[in-house]
Amino acid sequence: MSASARPRTAEELGLMRGFPPPEDKLVTAANFQDAPYNRWAFQHISNLLPTALISRGEVPIDQLPRADQNLGEIRYAGVNGPTTVTEMLERTYTDGFLVLRDGVIVTESYFNGMRPDTRHLLMSISKSLTGTLAGIFVARGLLDPAATVPTYVPELRHGAYGDATVQHLLDMTASVVFNEDYADPTSEIQRQDRATGWRVPREGDILGNYHFIPTLKKAGEHGRVFQYCSADTDVLGWILEKITGTPFPDLLSLEIWAKLSAEHDAYSTVDRYGAALPDGGICTTLRDLARFGQMILQQGQYNGQSIVPSSWIQQTRHQGDNGPWRHAAWWTAVYPRGSYHNQFWHTGDEHGRFFGWGIHGQHLWIDPETKVVIVKFSTGPDAVDRTMLLDTLRGMAAISEALG
Amino acid sequence: MSASARPRTAEELGLMRGFPPPEDKLVTAANFQDAPYNRWAFQHISNLLPTALISRGEVPIDQLPRADQNLGEIRYAGVNGPTTVTEMLERTYTDGFLVLRDGVIVTESYFNGMRPDTRHLLMSISKSLTGTLAGIFVARGLLDPAATVPTYVPELRHGAYGDATVQHLLDMTASVVFNEDYADPTSEIQRQDRATGWRVPREGDILGNYHFIPTLKKAGEHGRVFQYCSADTDVLGWILEKITGTPFPDLLSLEIWAKLSAEHDAYSTVDRYGAALPDGGICTTLRDLARFGQMILQQGQYNGQSIVPSSWIQQTRHQGDNGPWRHAAWWTAVYPRGSYHNQFWHTGDEHGRFFGWGIHGQHLWIDPETKVVIVKFSTGPDAVDRTMLLDTLRGMAAISEALG
Repeated sequence: MSASARPRTAEELGLMRGFPPPEDKLVTAANFQDAPYNRWAFQHISNLLPTALISRGEVPIDQLPRADQNLGEIRYAGVNGPTTVTEMLERTYTDGFLVLRDGVIVTESYFNGMRPDTRHLLMSISKSLTGTLAGIFVARGLLDPAATVPTYVPELRHGAYGDATVQHLLDMTASVVFNEDYADPTSEIQRQDRATGWRVPREGDILGNYHFIPTLKKAGEHGRVFQYCSADTDVLGWILEKITGTPFPDLLSLEIWAKLSAEHDAYSTVDRYGAALPDGGICTTLRDLARFGQMILQQGQYNGQSIVPSSWIQQTRHQGDNGPWRHAAWWTAVYPRGSYHNQFWHTGDEHGRFFGWGIHGQHLWIDPETKVVIVKFSTGPDAVDRTMLLDTLRGMAAISEALG
Repeated sequence: MSASARPRTAEELGLMRGFPPPEDKLVTAANFQDAPYNRWAFQHISNLLPTALISRGEVPIDQLPRADQNLGEIRYAGVNGPTTVTEMLERTYTDGFLVLRDGVIVTESYFNGMRPDTRHLLMSISKSLTGTLAGIFVARGLLDPAATVPTYVPELRHGAYGDATVQHLLDMTASVVFNEDYADPTSEIQRQDRATGWRVPREGDILGNYHFIPTLKKAGEHGRVFQYCSADTDVLGWILEKITGTPFPDLLSLEIWAKLSAEHDAYSTVDRYGAALPDGGICTTLRDLARFGQMILQQGQYNGQSIVPSSWIQQTRHQGDNGPWRHAAWWTAVYPRGSYHNQFWHTGDEHGRFFGWGIHGQHLWIDPETKVVIVKFSTGPDAVDRTMLLDTLRGMAAISEALG
């Protein structure tokens, strides 16, 4: 591709450069989700919002083995014609890209100023971490997927979640009045953003996610339609806190992060009441998210420990329901036999590939057949750009095949 | 001491407990500096304010050797009569306490919920880190202590710092109109706090430390009087950014933190323009600050590397000026031959002990004679409680002597 078509980096854009930076180059809590400010913001979330530590704990660092391969020349059919992995990475505003094959790093690349110790915003890949954490407590018998939400969070006995089950949350089949229009100030997603500190509050706004969520209304019958609703995951996180008496970031550290021999702490954004944001607020390094993916690939086993019961991973991989999924026309066109189950996206293809996905181009791809894990962090200009999304999904499939 | 006299912990106070916590137990950006909220806040600064990473880098962790000794029974003359180290630690709202003897941990204790991976607010021990960082650039010939501030920061050619030298900043002998009354909303310290995000801004406030500092006025002649002024250190940090083109947190990581084989990242608070707070905003773990102290004790050498030129440490230790110090009556009574030099407090005693110190009970004590380094993190109710301060200083001297 031509140099002019390459997206400009945060540095080239002059964002947050200078002491002090000029007003028009400031990245703030008010603009961090918007292009081009997100080019800097998603690598510097702690600079913009309050965050809670997800500690890597006190264990020694375990370096991932490495055997570099050039995957950039892999050619595949992109949406707008033949393309290569290198072209896809450049075109889709990539910040970091890592491919593990059988636990070995075969490619690790950084762009747009990202470094190995940069914590990058996961957006909704956070949900897959949250679902996995929930699975640990299901397997321990402390969380019943068939129980209703108010069993654990009495504050939610009225409103959208009064008769929703934990499994509805896990599969995003609760039926909630939730407008996800990011541009509409009266939409539930914007009001939730203002409640969580992700946007600047307006006069009269409800502050705090645990104050906002109980105001949500039920739409229709739960369990029938796949309705991607971020609040579902936050309720799941709230339930885990109620069960354990432990704040979500500490719980994620204790049960998962501190067992991965992670190289770096992770963190989550928090609202003014200290609530983390399990639906999208977690930030990790590129390699550490790959470790998480590898643990999932290994049925919850990692470094000789069982972190997540394999029964949960098996069930997550194999028991998704295609019925609710079919209400999502675009996704059904891409993955006709797909499902959203236990906070992961399942392709339903013959390879059993599944993934975590977040807006603006965050990807965690897991191929159990070829034992490939791919992490891609990005700062795309639009929340969802279907061309970029499809080019990325196809590119990851092409890598999976090439390494198979 | 009796149980009732022991300060209550953040948990006992109910601070930030519950999902969500009740309104009257919230710790926020508005109250975090006030008792009792600081009991929780100083261990959770990132939860309250935007922060910038001071990365530990990619080097392997080097565990500090350990040979536990019971120092708690050491008796000494406290301000209100005989006391012990254990009593002093309990009475002075200690969160963490660590003693190194010749680089070996002899005591490491945590209180009030603090853990080995908790990043605790250093308050003005941050200044000693900043002064040390400046020393590296002086030794490289990139920073001239005799040059005036506007040589490096033209924005400061008017106002308090127009004809102050870098050495005036290092020694806190710039003469600045700066009211340090924390309770007065019109005081410079409060207005600076509101500019840096340490307090909630009011209508008409200047936002951003680099917008506030140029408004400060000169008081009298520079170089004569020890005037402890936090803004001096921030100007030093600003100069380092201008010289290197690198944000202060990245610079501190690159030159010091990533060379200490630190166990954990550190971080600094940042204002809305991204400026860190070298005067007091750095947060580190207990052990990692001890590593910094040990590096200073070892004349800037650590793990076979020269991090800070020994000439700078020698000069810092031995060339303080007692003249300006003698204007500080209370300190002169405690250390008649003392000085404040290169952002460290020097006792001027026959042992050559010197230290970093921050409000609410933060201490980094270095005794070159007995090769003792002591770190104490606290959450005392008052910014400066002279009884607690003196009891702590005497306690650290008693430990130095006992280990000598």
